[in-house]
Amino acid sequence: MAFHYPNGRRFTPGPDKTAVNPMKKANYSNRGMTLEDDLNDTNEFYLANGIAVVHKKPTPVQIVDVHYPKRSAAVIKEAYFKQASTTDYNGVYKGRYIDFEAKETQSLTSFPLKNFHEHQIRHMKSVTDQGGIAFVIIRFSSSDEIYMMDAPQLVIFWERMESGGRKSISKEEVQNSSIKIPLGFQPRIDYIKVIDSFLNGKI
Amino acid sequence: MAFHYPNGRRFTPGPDKTAVNPMKKANYSNRGMTLEDDLNDTNEFYLANGIAVVHKKPTPVQIVDVHYPKRSAAVIKEAYFKQASTTDYNGVYKGRYIDFEAKETQSLTSFPLKNFHEHQIRHMKSVTDQGGIAFVIIRFSSSDEIYMMDAPQLVIFWERMESGGRKSISKEEVQNSSIKIPLGFQPRIDYIKVIDSFLNGKI
Repeated sequence: MAFHYPNGRRFTPGPDKTAVNPMKKANYSNRGMTLEDDLNDTNEFYLANGIAVVHKKPTPVQIVDVHYPKRSAAVIKEAYFKQASTTDYNGVYKGRYIDFEAKETQSLTSFPLKNFHEHQIRHMKSVTDQGGIAFVIIRFSSSDEIYMMDAPQLVIFWERMESGGRKSISKEEVQNSSIKIPLGFQPRIDYIKVIDSFLNGKI
Repeated sequence: MAFHYPNGRRFTPGPDKTAVNPMKKANYSNRGMTLEDDLNDTNEFYLANGIAVVHKKPTPVQIVDVHYPKRSAAVIKEAYFKQASTTDYNGVYKGRYIDFEAKETQSLTSFPLKNFHEHQIRHMKSVTDQGGIAFVIIRFSSSDEIYMMDAPQLVIFWERMESGGRKSISKEEVQNSSIKIPLGFQPRIDYIKVIDSFLNGKI
Protein backbone atom coordinates (compact mmCIF):
# COMPACT_ATOMS: atom_id res chain seq x y z
CA MET A 1 0.00 0.00 0.00
CA ALA A 2 1.72 3.22 -1.12
CA PHE A 3 0.27 6.70 -0.86
CA HIS A 4 1.38 9.41 -3.22
CA TYR A 5 1.14 13.15 -2.98
CA PRO A 6 -0.41 14.89 -6.03
CA ASN A 7 3.11 15.80 -7.16
CA GLY A 8 3.97 12.11 -7.37
CA ARG A 9 6.28 12.17 -4.39
CA ARG A 10 5.87 9.11 -2.22
CA PHE A 11 4.25 9.73 1.15
CA THR A 12 6.26 8.36 4.03
CA PRO A 13 4.52 8.36 7.39
CA GLY A 14 6.37 10.36 10.02
CA PRO A 15 8.65 8.13 12.04
CA ASP A 16 8.60 5.16 9.69
CA LYS A 17 11.78 5.81 7.81
CA THR A 18 12.24 2.32 6.50
CA ALA A 19 13.25 3.59 3.09
CA VAL A 20 16.83 4.76 2.94
CA ASN A 21 17.01 8.28 1.62
CA PRO A 22 19.89 8.37 -0.87
CA MET A 23 20.17 12.18 -0.71
CA LYS A 24 20.67 12.08 3.01
CA LYS A 25 23.13 9.21 2.76
CA ALA A 26 25.24 11.16 0.28
CA ASN A 27 25.86 13.83 2.88
CA TYR A 28 28.95 12.26 4.31
CA SER A 29 30.25 15.24 6.21
CA ASN A 30 28.89 15.82 9.66
CA ARG A 31 27.74 19.37 9.02
CA GLY A 32 24.66 19.87 11.12
CA MET A 33 24.15 16.16 11.71
CA THR A 34 23.34 15.44 15.30
CA LEU A 35 24.09 12.19 17.05
CA GLU A 36 20.37 11.43 16.78
CA ASP A 37 20.40 11.99 13.01
CA ASP A 38 23.42 9.73 12.65
CA LEU A 39 21.80 6.99 14.73
CA ASN A 40 18.51 7.26 12.86
CA ASP A 41 20.41 6.89 9.58
CA THR A 42 22.30 3.95 11.02
CA ASN A 43 19.09 2.28 12.17
CA GLU A 44 17.46 2.86 8.78
CA PHE A 45 20.45 1.21 7.16
CA TYR A 46 20.27 -1.76 9.53
CA LEU A 47 16.54 -2.15 8.91
CA ALA A 48 16.77 -1.82 5.12
CA ASN A 49 19.55 -4.42 5.03
CA GLY A 50 17.99 -6.87 7.47
CA ILE A 51 20.85 -6.41 9.96
CA ALA A 52 18.86 -5.31 13.01
CA VAL A 53 15.53 -3.72 13.94
CA VAL A 54 16.13 -0.74 16.22
CA HIS A 55 13.90 2.30 16.66
CA LYS A 56 14.02 5.46 18.68
CA LYS A 57 11.09 5.73 21.04
CA PRO A 58 8.78 8.72 20.67
CA THR A 59 9.31 11.64 23.04
CA PRO A 60 7.02 11.07 26.04
CA VAL A 61 4.40 13.77 26.31
CA GLN A 62 1.67 14.34 28.88
CA ILE A 63 -1.37 15.38 26.89
CA VAL A 64 -3.72 17.74 28.76
CA ASP A 65 -6.04 19.25 26.16
CA VAL A 66 -7.05 18.08 22.69
CA HIS A 67 -9.35 19.87 20.27
CA TYR A 68 -11.32 18.01 17.62
CA PRO A 69 -12.04 20.44 14.82
CA LYS A 70 -14.62 19.40 12.24
CA ARG A 71 -13.20 17.79 9.12
CA SER A 72 -9.58 17.99 10.24
CA ALA A 73 -7.12 16.21 12.45
CA ALA A 74 -7.25 16.39 16.24
CA VAL A 75 -5.02 19.16 17.58
CA ILE A 76 -3.18 18.86 20.87
CA LYS A 77 -3.53 22.30 22.46
CA GLU A 78 -1.79 21.72 25.76
CA ALA A 79 0.82 19.13 26.59
CA TYR A 80 4.03 18.85 28.58
CA PHE A 81 7.27 17.00 28.16
CA LYS A 82 7.60 14.07 30.52
CA GLN A 83 10.81 12.54 31.72
CA ALA A 84 11.47 9.29 29.90
CA SER A 85 11.31 6.22 32.13
CA THR A 86 13.51 4.14 29.90
CA THR A 87 16.24 4.71 27.35
CA ASP A 88 15.63 6.17 23.91
CA TYR A 89 16.52 3.26 21.66
CA ASN A 90 15.75 -0.42 21.70
CA GLY A 91 15.33 -3.31 19.33
CA VAL A 92 16.48 -6.72 18.25
CA TYR A 93 19.67 -8.13 16.80
CA LYS A 94 19.86 -11.87 16.10
CA GLY A 95 17.04 -12.49 18.54
CA ARG A 96 18.82 -10.61 21.32
CA TYR A 97 17.33 -7.57 22.97
CA ILE A 98 19.44 -4.42 22.71
CA ASP A 99 18.77 -1.20 24.54
CA PHE A 100 20.70 2.04 24.65
CA GLU A 101 20.79 5.74 25.34
CA ALA A 102 22.81 8.18 23.24
CA LYS A 103 24.22 11.43 24.59
CA GLU A 104 26.71 14.02 23.41
CA THR A 105 28.78 16.57 25.26
CA GLN A 106 30.61 19.72 24.23
CA SER A 107 33.16 19.13 26.95
CA LEU A 108 36.68 18.32 25.79
CA THR A 109 37.79 16.64 28.98
CA SER A 110 34.93 14.68 30.54
CA PHE A 111 31.43 13.32 30.17
CA PRO A 112 28.96 14.72 32.74
CA LEU A 113 26.80 12.06 34.38
CA LYS A 114 23.90 14.50 34.62
CA ASN A 115 23.20 13.44 31.04
CA PHE A 116 21.50 10.39 32.52
CA HIS A 117 18.61 10.09 34.94
CA GLU A 118 18.53 7.67 37.80
CA HIS A 119 15.57 5.72 36.43
CA GLN A 120 17.45 5.25 33.16
CA ILE A 121 20.33 3.68 35.07
CA ARG A 122 17.83 1.52 36.93
CA HIS A 123 16.23 0.54 33.62
CA MET A 124 19.59 -0.45 32.13
CA LYS A 125 20.32 -2.55 35.20
CA SER A 126 16.97 -4.35 34.83
CA VAL A 127 17.70 -5.00 31.16
CA THR A 128 21.14 -6.41 31.94
CA ASP A 129 19.67 -8.59 34.71
CA GLN A 130 17.19 -9.93 32.17
CA GLY A 131 19.98 -10.93 29.80
CA GLY A 132 19.53 -7.99 27.44
CA ILE A 133 22.40 -5.96 26.01
CA ALA A 134 22.34 -2.44 27.42
CA PHE A 135 24.85 0.30 26.70
CA VAL A 136 25.32 4.00 26.10
CA ILE A 137 26.68 5.77 23.07
CA ILE A 138 28.71 8.81 24.07
CA ARG A 139 29.80 11.47 21.62
CA PHE A 140 32.39 14.15 22.28
CA SER A 141 30.98 16.59 19.76
CA SER A 142 33.95 18.93 19.49
CA SER A 143 36.22 16.14 18.28
CA ASP A 144 33.40 13.97 16.88
CA GLU A 145 34.64 10.93 18.78
CA ILE A 146 32.05 8.28 19.56
CA TYR A 147 32.33 5.64 22.27
CA MET A 148 30.18 2.73 23.32
CA MET A 149 30.19 1.93 27.02
CA ASP A 150 28.29 -1.05 28.34
CA ALA A 151 25.74 -0.52 31.08
CA PRO A 152 27.57 -2.40 33.87
CA GLN A 153 30.56 -0.11 33.30
CA LEU A 154 28.37 3.00 33.36
CA VAL A 155 26.81 1.78 36.61
CA ILE A 156 30.28 1.66 38.20
CA PHE A 157 30.83 5.36 37.40
CA TRP A 158 27.28 6.19 38.49
CA GLU A 159 27.76 4.50 41.85
CA ARG A 160 31.07 6.26 42.33
CA MET A 161 29.17 9.54 41.99
CA GLU A 162 26.44 8.40 44.37
CA SER A 163 29.00 7.54 47.00
CA GLY A 164 30.37 11.08 46.81
CA GLY A 165 32.82 10.76 43.91
CA ARG A 166 33.12 12.88 40.79
CA LYS A 167 29.99 13.80 38.85
CA SER A 168 31.50 13.01 35.49
CA ILE A 169 33.59 10.42 33.69
CA SER A 170 36.95 11.76 32.63
CA LYS A 171 37.70 11.41 28.94
CA GLU A 172 40.60 9.13 29.75
CA GLU A 173 38.27 6.88 31.74
CA VAL A 174 35.85 6.79 28.82
CA GLN A 175 38.70 5.85 26.49
CA ASN A 176 39.90 3.10 28.80
CA SER A 177 36.51 1.55 29.52
CA SER A 178 34.67 1.85 26.20
CA ILE A 179 34.97 0.79 22.60
CA LYS A 180 35.57 3.59 20.13
CA ILE A 181 33.25 3.45 17.14
CA PRO A 182 34.84 4.91 14.01
CA LEU A 183 32.51 7.17 12.02
CA GLY A 184 31.59 5.49 8.77
CA PHE A 185 29.62 6.15 5.65
CA GLN A 186 27.05 3.37 5.67
CA PRO A 187 26.22 2.83 8.44
CA ARG A 188 27.36 6.05 10.09
CA ILE A 189 27.79 4.62 13.59
CA ASP A 190 28.25 0.87 13.30
CA TYR A 191 27.44 -0.14 16.86
CA ILE A 192 26.15 -3.57 15.77
CA LYS A 193 29.70 -4.47 14.74
CA VAL A 194 30.80 -3.89 18.32
CA ILE A 195 27.90 -5.96 19.69
CA ASP A 196 28.86 -8.69 17.27
CA SER A 197 32.42 -8.79 18.56
CA PHE A 198 31.01 -8.83 22.06
CA LEU A 199 28.67 -11.75 21.32
CA ASN A 200 31.49 -13.65 19.65
CA GLY A 201 33.61 -13.21 22.75
CA LYS A 202 36.16 -11.02 20.98
CA ILE A 203 35.78 -8.19 23.48
CA MET B 1 17.47 10.21 44.61
CA ALA B 2 13.87 10.64 45.75
CA PHE B 3 11.75 13.76 45.43
CA HIS B 4 8.93 14.40 47.84
CA TYR B 5 5.93 16.62 47.59
CA PRO B 6 5.41 18.98 50.57
CA ASN B 7 2.76 16.56 51.85
CA GLY B 8 5.37 13.83 52.10
CA ARG B 9 4.00 11.81 49.22
CA ARG B 10 6.74 10.40 47.06
CA PHE B 11 7.01 11.93 43.61
CA THR B 12 6.96 9.33 40.85
CA PRO B 13 7.78 10.61 37.38
CA GLY B 14 4.95 10.05 34.92
CA PRO B 15 5.46 6.84 32.99
CA ASP B 16 7.91 5.24 35.38
CA LYS B 17 5.54 2.95 37.22
CA THR B 18 8.17 0.60 38.51
CA ALA B 19 6.56 0.51 41.93
CA VAL B 20 3.59 -1.79 42.10
CA ASN B 21 0.55 0.08 43.37
CA PRO B 22 -1.16 -2.21 45.89
CA MET B 23 -4.44 -0.28 45.72
CA LYS B 24 -4.62 -0.82 42.01
CA LYS B 25 -3.66 -4.46 42.34
CA ALA B 26 -6.46 -5.03 44.84
CA ASN B 27 -9.01 -4.09 42.20
CA TYR B 28 -9.46 -7.59 40.87
CA SER B 29 -12.66 -7.04 38.96
CA ASN B 30 -12.39 -5.69 35.48
CA ARG B 31 -14.69 -2.73 36.01
CA GLY B 32 -13.36 0.05 33.86
CA MET B 33 -10.00 -1.63 33.30
CA THR B 34 -8.92 -1.42 29.72
CA LEU B 35 -6.64 -3.90 28.00
CA GLU B 36 -3.92 -1.25 28.26
CA ASP B 37 -4.42 -0.92 32.03
CA ASP B 38 -4.26 -4.67 32.45
CA LEU B 39 -1.08 -4.91 30.38
CA ASN B 40 0.54 -2.02 32.23
CA ASP B 41 -0.25 -3.74 35.52
CA THR B 42 1.12 -6.99 34.15
CA ASN B 43 4.32 -5.30 32.99
CA GLU B 44 4.73 -3.59 36.37
CA PHE B 45 4.38 -6.97 38.02
CA TYR B 46 6.96 -8.53 35.69
CA LEU B 47 9.38 -5.67 36.31
CA ALA B 48 8.95 -5.62 40.09
CA ASN B 49 9.52 -9.38 40.24
CA GLY B 50 12.44 -9.52 37.82
CA ILE B 51 10.47 -11.64 35.35
CA ALA B 52 10.70 -9.43 32.27
CA VAL B 53 11.29 -5.80 31.28
CA VAL B 54 8.52 -4.63 28.96
CA HIS B 55 7.26 -1.09 28.48
CA LYS B 56 4.60 0.57 26.40
CA LYS B 57 6.06 3.11 24.03
CA PRO B 58 4.91 6.73 24.34
CA THR B 59 2.22 7.90 21.93
CA PRO B 60 4.01 9.42 18.94
CA VAL B 61 3.29 13.11 18.62
CA GLN B 62 4.41 15.66 16.02
CA ILE B 63 5.28 18.78 17.97
CA VAL B 64 4.71 22.03 16.07
CA ASP B 65 4.76 24.82 18.64
CA VAL B 66 6.28 25.03 22.10
CA HIS B 67 6.11 27.98 24.49
CA TYR B 68 8.74 28.55 27.15
CA PRO B 69 7.13 30.58 29.91
CA LYS B 70 9.44 32.15 32.50
CA ARG B 71 9.93 30.08 35.64
CA SER B 72 7.69 27.23 34.54
CA ALA B 73 7.78 24.16 32.36
CA ALA B 74 7.73 24.32 28.58
CA VAL B 75 4.19 24.04 27.21
CA ILE B 76 3.43 22.32 23.93
CA LYS B 77 0.80 24.56 22.30
CA GLU B 78 0.33 22.75 19.02
CA ALA B 79 0.94 19.12 18.23
CA TYR B 80 -0.65 16.30 16.26
CA PHE B 81 -0.98 12.58 16.73
CA LYS B 82 1.25 10.60 14.43
CA GLN B 83 0.69 7.06 13.27
CA ALA B 84 2.99 4.71 15.14
CA SER B 85 5.61 3.07 12.94
CA THR B 86 6.06 0.10 15.21
CA THR B 87 4.02 -1.80 17.76
CA ASP B 88 3.16 -0.42 21.19
CA TYR B 89 5.02 -2.78 23.49
CA ASN B 90 8.50 -4.22 23.48
CA GLY B 91 11.10 -5.47 25.88
CA VAL B 92 13.25 -8.33 27.01
CA TYR B 93 12.61 -11.75 28.51
CA LYS B 94 15.58 -14.01 29.27
CA GLY B 95 17.70 -12.06 26.82
CA ARG B 96 15.17 -12.51 24.03
CA TYR B 97 13.51 -9.59 22.31
CA ILE B 98 9.72 -9.55 22.56
CA ASP B 99 7.44 -7.20 20.66
CA PHE B 100 3.69 -6.96 20.54
CA GLU B 101 0.60 -4.95 19.79
CA ALA B 102 -2.57 -5.20 21.88
CA LYS B 103 -6.06 -4.56 20.51
CA GLU B 104 -9.59 -5.13 21.66
CA THR B 105 -12.84 -5.39 19.80
CA GLN B 106 -16.49 -5.12 20.80
CA SER B 107 -17.43 -7.59 18.11
CA LEU B 108 -18.76 -10.93 19.30
CA THR B 109 -17.98 -12.84 16.15
CA SER B 110 -14.74 -11.62 14.60
CA PHE B 111 -11.64 -9.50 14.97
CA PRO B 112 -11.38 -6.72 12.35
CA LEU B 113 -7.95 -6.45 10.73
CA LYS B 114 -8.32 -2.68 10.43
CA ASN B 115 -7.08 -2.66 14.03
CA PHE B 116 -3.59 -2.99 12.57
CA HIS B 117 -1.68 -0.81 10.14
CA GLU B 118 0.37 -2.16 7.31
CA HIS B 119 3.64 -0.80 8.68
CA GLN B 120 2.95 -2.58 11.97
CA ILE B 121 2.62 -5.86 10.09
CA ARG B 122 5.84 -5.03 8.25
CA HIS B 123 7.51 -4.24 11.56
CA MET B 124 6.42 -7.55 13.09
CA LYS B 125 7.77 -9.38 10.04
CA SER B 126 11.15 -7.63 10.42
CA VAL B 127 11.24 -8.55 14.10
CA THR B 128 10.46 -12.20 13.37
CA ASP B 129 13.10 -12.27 10.62
CA GLN B 130 15.59 -10.94 13.16
CA GLY B 131 14.82 -13.78 15.56
CA GLY B 132 12.65 -11.71 17.88
CA ILE B 133 9.34 -12.91 19.30
CA ALA B 134 6.47 -10.88 17.84
CA PHE B 135 2.80 -11.39 18.54
CA VAL B 136 -0.52 -9.68 19.10
CA ILE B 137 -2.78 -9.75 22.12
CA ILE B 138 -6.42 -9.72 21.09
CA ARG B 139 -9.25 -9.07 23.52
CA PHE B 140 -12.91 -9.71 22.84
CA SER B 141 -14.13 -7.13 25.32
CA SER B 142 -17.76 -8.24 25.58
CA SER B 143 -16.75 -11.69 26.85
CA ASP B 144 -13.38 -10.56 28.24
CA GLU B 145 -11.56 -13.32 26.40
CA ILE B 146 -7.91 -12.71 25.64
CA TYR B 147 -5.88 -14.47 22.97
CA MET B 148 -2.25 -14.36 21.95
CA MET B 149 -1.56 -14.87 18.24
CA ASP B 150 1.98 -15.01 16.94
CA ALA B 151 3.00 -12.65 14.18
CA PRO B 152 3.54 -15.27 11.43
CA GLN B 153 -0.07 -16.43 11.98
CA LEU B 154 -1.38 -12.87 11.87
CA VAL B 155 0.54 -12.31 8.64
CA ILE B 156 -1.34 -15.25 7.07
CA PHE B 157 -4.69 -13.61 7.83
CA TRP B 158 -3.36 -10.22 6.70
CA GLU B 159 -2.21 -11.61 3.37
CA ARG B 160 -5.53 -13.36 2.88
CA MET B 161 -7.17 -9.92 3.17
CA GLU B 162 -4.66 -8.37 0.79
CA SER B 163 -5.39 -10.99 -1.82
CA GLY B 164 -9.08 -10.13 -1.66
CA GLY B 165 -10.24 -12.27 1.26
CA ARG B 166 -12.18 -11.26 4.35
CA LYS B 167 -11.17 -8.15 6.28
CA SER B 168 -11.38 -9.81 9.65
CA ILE B 169 -10.44 -12.97 11.49
CA SER B 170 -13.47 -14.97 12.57
CA LYS B 171 -13.62 -15.72 16.26
CA GLU B 172 -13.38 -19.43 15.50
CA GLU B 173 -10.19 -18.80 13.54
CA VAL B 174 -8.77 -16.82 16.43
CA GLN B 175 -9.62 -19.67 18.79
CA ASN B 176 -8.01 -22.24 16.53
CA SER B 177 -4.82 -20.33 15.79
CA SER B 178 -4.05 -18.61 19.10
CA ILE B 179 -3.36 -19.39 22.72
CA LYS B 180 -6.04 -18.26 25.14
CA ILE B 181 -4.64 -16.40 28.13
CA PRO B 182 -6.74 -16.85 31.26
CA LEU B 183 -7.32 -13.62 33.20
CA GLY B 184 -5.44 -13.75 36.46
CA PHE B 185 -4.88 -11.70 39.55
CA GLN B 186 -1.12 -11.15 39.54
CA PRO B 187 -0.21 -10.84 36.78
CA ARG B 188 -3.49 -9.98 35.08
CA ILE B 189 -2.51 -11.19 31.60
CA ASP B 190 0.30 -13.68 31.95
CA TYR B 191 1.63 -13.64 28.40
CA ILE B 192 5.16 -14.50 29.53
CA LYS B 193 3.90 -17.91 30.60
CA VAL B 194 2.82 -18.54 27.01
CA ILE B 195 6.18 -17.34 25.66
CA ASP B 196 7.88 -19.64 28.12
CA SER B 197 5.94 -22.65 26.85
CA PHE B 198 6.81 -21.54 23.34
CA LEU B 199 10.54 -21.26 24.11
CA ASN B 200 10.50 -24.65 25.81
CA GLY B 201 8.95 -26.18 22.71
CA LYS B 202 5.70 -27.02 24.47
CA ILE B 203 3.58 -25.16 21.93
